[in-house]
Amino acid sequence: MRIVVLAGGIGGARFLLGVRAYAREVGAEVTAVVNVGDDLWLHGLKICPDLDSVMYTLGGGADPERGWGRVGESWTVKEELAAYGAQPAWFGLGDKDIATHLVRSSMLNGGYPLSAVTEALSTRWEPGVRLLPATDDRLETHAVVEDEQGQRAIHFQEWWVRYRADIDTQRFVFVGAETAKPAPGVLEAIGSADLVLVAPSNPVVSVAPVLAVPGVRAAVADSPAPVVGVSPIIGGAPVRGMADRCLAVLGVECSAAGVGRLYGGRPDGGLLDGWLVAEEDAGAVVPGVTVRAVPLRMTDEAATAAMVRAAVELT
Amino acid sequence: MRIVVLAGGIGGARFLLGVRAYAREVGAEVTAVVNVGDDLWLHGLKICPDLDSVMYTLGGGADPERGWGRVGESWTVKEELAAYGAQPAWFGLGDKDIATHLVRSSMLNGGYPLSAVTEALSTRWEPGVRLLPATDDRLETHAVVEDEQGQRAIHFQEWWVRYRADIDTQRFVFVGAETAKPAPGVLEAIGSADLVLVAPSNPVVSVAPVLAVPGVRAAVADSPAPVVGVSPIIGGAPVRGMADRCLAVLGVECSAAGVGRLYGGRPDGGLLDGWLVAEEDAGAVVPGVTVRAVPLRMTDEAATAAMVRAAVELT
Repeated sequence: MRIVVLAGGIGGARFLLGVRAYAREVGAEVTAVVNVGDDLWLHGLKICPDLDSVMYTLGGGADPERGWGRVGESWTVKEELAAYGAQPAWFGLGDKDIATHLVRSSMLNGGYPLSAVTEALSTRWEPGVRLLPATDDRLETHAVVEDEQGQRAIHFQEWWVRYRADIDTQRFVFVGAETAKPAPGVLEAIGSADLVLVAPSNPVVSVAPVLAVPGVRAAVADSPAPVVGVSPIIGGAPVRGMADRCLAVLGVECSAAGVGRLYGGRPDGGLLDGWLVAEEDAGAVVPGVTVRAVPLRMTDEAATAAMVRAAVELT
Repeated sequence: MRIVVLAGGIGGARFLLGVRAYAREVGAEVTAVVNVGDDLWLHGLKICPDLDSVMYTLGGGADPERGWGRVGESWTVKEELAAYGAQPAWFGLGDKDIATHLVRSSMLNGGYPLSAVTEALSTRWEPGVRLLPATDDRLETHAVVEDEQGQRAIHFQEWWVRYRADIDTQRFVFVGAETAKPAPGVLEAIGSADLVLVAPSNPVVSVAPVLAVPGVRAAVADSPAPVVGVSPIIGGAPVRGMADRCLAVLGVECSAAGVGRLYGGRPDGGLLDGWLVAEEDAGAVVPGVTVRAVPLRMTDEAATAAMVRAAVELT
C-alpha cells in the first residue's frame, strides 16, 4: 500500500507521525509532498520551515512545546546578529537549526536541487517517510497587505511571524508558481498512490501552495486512488496557527464544512472523496464528499494513527 | 602622528592593543593593514581569522585564554554540522563567531568588498583603530605538502589547524597574489604614515602575504617614514603559534636575528630601519638595521605600549 500525504508544517508533521505509525502497522510506504511556500533566504541561509518541521518531528528532534524548531535549542547566533543590527531580526533562527540551513544552503549553492538536499538531510534524521518538496523551484507565498505604509506584498513569514497576521490583507500570491515544476517523484508518487491524504494543515498557505505547482492539483484530481482530507478546523477554530485569519482573507467560513467546500468534491471538479471532521462538527455537509466525524485531536501517535485508519475505512 | 601597522592575527591583535594605548597617549591615528591569507570559505561562510582576531581583541570580545575567537563562546552549530557529517569538521567555528561570518558573507555575496564589510562590522566593535584588509581580492596562503597521499597544495588553515603544521612541507604559495590589488586606503595609509610598524606576527604566513600584495612591499620600502619591526621570536622560540615550523620551511633560522634578516635592512633593498628584539636576544645583528633589545612580552597593554614607545624612540 502506498500513501501520499500533502502536508504543511507543524500540523502536517504531527499528522505524519500518525501516518507513519499506521503505515508501520500495515506495511505501507509513505511519501509526504511538503509545502515550500514558507521558504525564504535569510542572512544568506535557505530556510525551509515546513520541510524542517516535518523532518525534525519525524526524526525525533523537534521541540514538542514550541512546535517548530529543535528541542533544546539555543539562540546565540540570533542574539549576535541582533548585536550587529542585522535585519530582519524577527525570525526565530536557532543555533541547532542554523546548522541545517548551512548544510542546505551550501548544497543549494553548489547546484543540488532542494529535493536532493532534503534527501541528504534525511539520512541524518531517518524520518521513515519519503520527504519531497512540492517543487525544487522558487515558489514563495506572499501576502498583499495594506497599512500606513501603503499596499505592498510581503513574504508569508513576515506576515506570519512579524505581523502575527494582524494586518489588513487583500490576498495571497504564490510567487513563481506559474513556472514551477513538481519536484522529481511528486507526480509519480501521486499517480501510483493507493491513498492520497490531505493533512490537517492550513488550507490557504500550506496545502494551496502545494496544489499551486502546475500539474499537482490535476494529478490529485485524476488519481485513481481515493483522496481523503482531514479538517484542520475543529468546532469553528483552527487547532493551531492562524488558519482563521487566512480563511478570512479568502472570505471562507472558518469551519470544517467551509474548508471541505474550499477543497471541493471530486464530482464537482474538486479534490476530495472523503472528509474527516471532528465529532463536534458532525453533520457538516460538503457536496459530493463523504464526511465522517471522528476524534481529530492529535494528542499522540496512536490517536493520530486512528485518524488515518478512519480515513482508510472511509474509502 | 599617523602610525601604520602590518599585522597578522593574534600576535598582531595584542600588539595593536599597545599601539592603540600609545596612540591615545600621544594623539596619534592608527591604521592596521591586516593579513587575509588565512581567510577561507567554509560551509558557505567567509571566515577572516586575522581580521576577526584583531577586531574582537580591540573590541573587547576576544577570548583571552584561547587567543582566537569570542569570549564565552559556544559550539552548538559545530556539533550539529558534525552530526550531519558536514566536512571539514576540523575548523573551530563558534556560535558567536558564526554571526560575524553570516553578516560578512551576506554583504560579500551582495557585492560589498571586504574592506567595506570590515568597516561595517567595526561599527559594532569600535576597535579605535582603522582596520584594512591587505586586499579585497582573493589571496590565500596554501602550503605545498607531501605525505602518503602524494604532493598537494592545502589551504593554510588545513595545514595549521588540521595538521598542526606536522606534515612534510616544501613551501608556501600565496594564491591570487599576482593579481591582487591593495584594498582602498592601504597604499595611501602607508604613503602618508609617520611610522610603519611590523607587528610581532608570523613573518612567513602573516606578514609575508600582506607584503605579497603587489605594491605594498614597494610602498613600505619607499615610505619616507621609518619602518620598525618587532621580533616574534624570543630566545629562539616563537612567543605563540608555530612560526618555528614556518621558518623551517623557508630554511630561515628561528631567531630574532634570523627574522630580522628575512625582512632585511632598507639599505640592502629590505624593509627595516629598526628591529626590536627581546632582552635575551641582545646582540642580534641585522645588517643595515638599528637593533635594540627591550622587554618584548605583551603581558598587558602598558607593557605593549612601552614596546611601541621604544620603536618610536628607535627612529
